[in-house]
Amino acid sequence: MSKARVEAFSDGVIAIAITLLVLDLHVPEPGSGTLGHELAKEWPSYAAYVVSFLTIGIIWVNHTAMLRRLNRVDHSILFLNLLLLMTIAVLPFTTALMAAYLKATGGENLAAAIYGGSLLVMSLAFYGMHRHLLLARVHFLQEHLTPEVRSAVLRRNAIGLLPYAFATAVAALSPYLTLAICGAVAVFYALPATTGDTPPEAPIE
Amino acid sequence: MSKARVEAFSDGVIAIAITLLVLDLHVPEPGSGTLGHELAKEWPSYAAYVVSFLTIGIIWVNHTAMLRRLNRVDHSILFLNLLLLMTIAVLPFTTALMAAYLKATGGENLAAAIYGGSLLVMSLAFYGMHRHLLLARVHFLQEHLTPEVRSAVLRRNAIGLLPYAFATAVAALSPYLTLAICGAVAVFYALPATTGDTPPEAPIE
Amino acid sequence: MSKARVEAFSDGVIAIAITLLVLDLHVPEPGSGTLGHELAKEWPSYAAYVVSFLTIGIIWVNHTAMLRRLNRVDHSILFLNLLLLMTIAVLPFTTALMAAYLKATGGENLAAAIYGGSLLVMSLAFYGMHRHLLLARVHFLQEHLTPEVRSAVLRRNAIGLLPYAFATAVAALSPYLTLAICGAVAVFYALPATTGDTPPEAPIE
Amino acid sequence: MSKARVEAFSDGVIAIAITLLVLDLHVPEPGSGTLGHELAKEWPSYAAYVVSFLTIGIIWVNHTAMLRRLNRVDHSILFLNLLLLMTIAVLPFTTALMAAYLKATGGENLAAAIYGGSLLVMSLAFYGMHRHLLLARVHFLQEHLTPEVRSAVLRRNAIGLLPYAFATAVAALSPYLTLAICGAVAVFYALPATTGDTPPEAPIE
Repeated sequence: MSKARVEAFSDGVIAIAITLLVLDLHVPEPGSGTLGHELAKEWPSYAAYVVSFLTIGIIWVNHTAMLRRLNRVDHSILFLNLLLLMTIAVLPFTTALMAAYLKATGGENLAAAIYGGSLLVMSLAFYGMHRHLLLARVHFLQEHLTPEVRSAVLRRNAIGLLPYAFATAVAALSPYLTLAICGAVAVFYALPATTGDTPPEAPIE
Repeated sequence: MSKARVEAFSDGVIAIAITLLVLDLHVPEPGSGTLGHELAKEWPSYAAYVVSFLTIGIIWVNHTAMLRRLNRVDHSILFLNLLLLMTIAVLPFTTALMAAYLKATGGENLAAAIYGGSLLVMSLAFYGMHRHLLLARVHFLQEHLTPEVRSAVLRRNAIGLLPYAFATAVAALSPYLTLAICGAVAVFYALPATTGDTPPEAPIE
Repeated sequence: MSKARVEAFSDGVIAIAITLLVLDLHVPEPGSGTLGHELAKEWPSYAAYVVSFLTIGIIWVNHTAMLRRLNRVDHSILFLNLLLLMTIAVLPFTTALMAAYLKATGGENLAAAIYGGSLLVMSLAFYGMHRHLLLARVHFLQEHLTPEVRSAVLRRNAIGLLPYAFATAVAALSPYLTLAICGAVAVFYALPATTGDTPPEAPIE
Repeated sequence: MSKARVEAFSDGVIAIAITLLVLDLHVPEPGSGTLGHELAKEWPSYAAYVVSFLTIGIIWVNHTAMLRRLNRVDHSILFLNLLLLMTIAVLPFTTALMAAYLKATGGENLAAAIYGGSLLVMSLAFYGMHRHLLLARVHFLQEHLTPEVRSAVLRRNAIGLLPYAFATAVAALSPYLTLAICGAVAVFYALPATTGDTPPEAPIE
């Protein structure tokens, strides 16, 4: 089983999910009010768009890094990858859900918890697949990694889950805080890479 | 005719179809009720999303395995592949149809029969293309397969049609049973692959 | 300029256009009537879906064949290809337009003329690009084609425009005839390929 | 880090954004008036579709040319590319916004300014990424470019920003002028390439 088609299929699904986010940006009905005012009310959609776009983009970078390590794939990897892609493909929905309820009264805490939770589940799927590769499919890796290195990589991965768990939990207090934390995670991983010369290899890890 | 562009085009269509499924997940109108309650009413959409996502993912795995066997393609293969892609690309519609009517009263049996039927037709298109490759285009195959092996592969393929035929038929009794059977087929093919070390080569076959 | 990315981009646009056709298949509003009855009224959408899907699929096959002949591409080819892709990407709209008006009273002749016309324009763009390659970019071709061969290929191409011109014209008489002709063209090019052993190299030509 | 998957992912996002533009072309509600009349009222949507399609197509050509110069990519390039893709992926929204308000009374100046501004921001992202490559990642380039050549390329890039800045500014006077200028830019870069034998290497620069 060659990994080229797995990469192509994954690239396709992630590229489509990231681009479909734009369908959640709604054109205000002409005549319903001043356009500037109407657009201003839509700011949760724009904020959620940017956060989800950057987050999915970082997932893609990490997915690329993870598959690059492999020599080959088997069915267990194919199906874990499929589960991971499902958690990514669903993000346009949870993004739209949170944005819609940040604009309304009632339900915004639950909507933000679902958004944070969807990013947490996505990270868990990523962690689960990475763990499978590093522990159960170590003979598929292109370079030899000592058990210590592999444990360190996975520990770093697991730590990366914490911000999303926290973002999900604080939704009960403030849905805006959830969005802000998810945005901060995206910026945190994106920023150093544009300035430093030796960026971390796989940011979200 | 190189098969690389056939693979790229097929990967594209399947990746888009699987990702478009998310458009069937609707954000409840804010203010129409408690969000938790409104989302709970949408469970058929979520269940149908997961079943169709996994099913299309398995189709992709099998499609990859089928094309990998080929050295080259001709026009007969291109057009059978196009028919197969059409039966895959239509699944977001039949998924949305079943989900909408599982939430309503009236029409749910027909909607589920159409859903099961669309998976049956897709499997038939897959079987038809595989049969054409193994019987009429045997000189395109990368490795020599004895007639016995080819018959066995096709028999396994044909048996794979039965659950979808059954799922379509039982829609007259219970649309939920149709969804459950289709979900069980997807889980059946996905599960062993994530646990066993020697997964079956092409699950849906 | 390598042609690999041109092929990848073209494959992407065509794969998306063909898959977006499914968004024109609408789920009838539950409760608005018997589902079977409601679906039956939607038959123009299903017929238009099949015709447009097969037609775009055949375009893709021909596009593949056309680019395969090239060693390299230049900017004139890139932009003619972009125009061709624009005429393909617009087909989900003209398909939806015709299907909507075949179900209504009034406007169906114009809608069918626009559908036929959009296929005619797409064929013209294909012809124009092919003509540019065979006459003005002959040094980019992988194999030497005599002027006679090139004229013959282009003549065949030009003849392929006639059915769409006819389908557009007869829309004034019967929009169903337009759809039937476009469907017959698709079936004509698809059918032999699935039965014959020596199918024509590039069907729509 | 190989650049092949960066190209594949970018091709995917750009191809999807350019094809999603078709979703902004609306089928007039049957029975709401003469179809010809209804379609004529939609002309801003068609004009905006053509302008945005050609513009995104030219971006893709330039993006291809920019990445072709590179031997490898690092994280800074990945994230600048992600920002660039975000400015491209949002264009179907700003296109739909301008088209909707050109058809209405009130808000058309702001809508056109947002459209022109979105193209300006996209050009700035392109310029920023190109500047980063030519100044800070010069050791990643496939061929040696003297500082003079690099300055000249960037100066040409910067000049390419002016029409979009102008188009954004004149939206206060006339939204139609904004659309016309953006269209003229697209035609300006597309036209020579289809006629001349030595077209400019990267048009929008």
